[in-house]
Amino acid sequence: MIDLYTWKTPNGRKPVIALEALQLDYVVHPVDINRDEQFLPNFVAVSPNSKIPAIVDRENGMKLFESGAILQYLAEKTGKLLPTRGATRYSTLQWLNWQVGGVGPMFGQLGFFANRAKERLPLAVNRYLTESNRLLDVLEQRLSQSAYVGSDDYSIADIAIYPWVVAVITNNPALLADARANRPSMDRWMTKLAELPDVIKGMNVLQEAGVS
Amino acid sequence: MIDLYTWKTPNGRKPVIALEALQLDYVVHPVDINRDEQFLPNFVAVSPNSKIPAIVDRENGMKLFESGAILQYLAEKTGKLLPTRGATRYSTLQWLNWQVGGVGPMFGQLGFFANRAKERLPLAVNRYLTESNRLLDVLEQRLSQSAYVGSDDYSIADIAIYPWVVAVITNNPALLADARANRPSMDRWMTKLAELPDVIKGMNVLQEAGVS
Repeated sequence: MIDLYTWKTPNGRKPVIALEALQLDYVVHPVDINRDEQFLPNFVAVSPNSKIPAIVDRENGMKLFESGAILQYLAEKTGKLLPTRGATRYSTLQWLNWQVGGVGPMFGQLGFFANRAKERLPLAVNRYLTESNRLLDVLEQRLSQSAYVGSDDYSIADIAIYPWVVAVITNNPALLADARANRPSMDRWMTKLAELPDVIKGMNVLQEAGVS
Repeated sequence: MIDLYTWKTPNGRKPVIALEALQLDYVVHPVDINRDEQFLPNFVAVSPNSKIPAIVDRENGMKLFESGAILQYLAEKTGKLLPTRGATRYSTLQWLNWQVGGVGPMFGQLGFFANRAKERLPLAVNRYLTESNRLLDVLEQRLSQSAYVGSDDYSIADIAIYPWVVAVITNNPALLADARANRPSMDRWMTKLAELPDVIKGMNVLQEAGVS
């Protein structure tokens, strides 16, 4: 049994998708970041960086934060969604890191400056819009050569990237109006992932539970 | 033999430190990002995201980009600097991900808005300065409990984090004047790492070769 501390954000959805895909038992504990619950002592004891998601695996008592590390832990615990060796293992980890270090932070900064900042700063909006479009172009290029992002198999790289691509397009309808239409390989991949039961469950986390 | 494509930036220094610590043979190929060499076709063939560092391992022909994935590959190739299993493995990967997804991007944005942007935007500078200080506080807290960041052993987590902490303090002397003095555990860790031969080599990459 895994205790999952999360919220309905792109990073918060990743472990739900993985737990569902891996058919692991888990309980969701909401951490409402709109009410600053990530700074409460009980949560900080699990996640000293005060960010969701975090997990505790009751089987071994392990506490873990950082969504990328959680995905890798769950994959290695079960031997699924990440090859144990060879070129496809590192290709998968490479694209997982690309999401963690690039897609997540840059899409996140675009969200802040385009939608939430109290001042409109064109320099900042343009900086993150340009980088977000560049990253989507890199993804399109990759998916024109490979069925999934890490390799030809569905993996934790797809699980990490998909919720962020959905979020950046949904949250910036004017700035990224043609994001999918201009990227047919990415569009095909998004359509395929949107139909997976584990992805559906993850994208709806805490909405089904009536927490929204 | 490993071909390393890199430049004298925090991310570019990480694989040098690891290659030295692991005593692997490598050749450095400079990719001058001040001259946009990361967009040249030969480099994009190795690193389709157009970012340094990237490697090619001549032993198996594997191409790899993303510094976090490169560190994990080198560690798993040799069985060193990352435990193969158990709690310390995932603690190490957790802090590695914390660098890749938090420290790197946020210190990087501070560097842009505080030092390189053509306009001074207090909202943006304050946003990234606040987050950088918060991340340094999280690091201080961690190092008050543990000899190294991932566990009590030196690992790829230290190798990933150290060059970024040096850079953010060096590049923002006014904004972060007391960063070390206020964080004694971090200061102790930085002093210890600064003396390691592999760290010295990595921090001086391409300067020794006269490329600076």
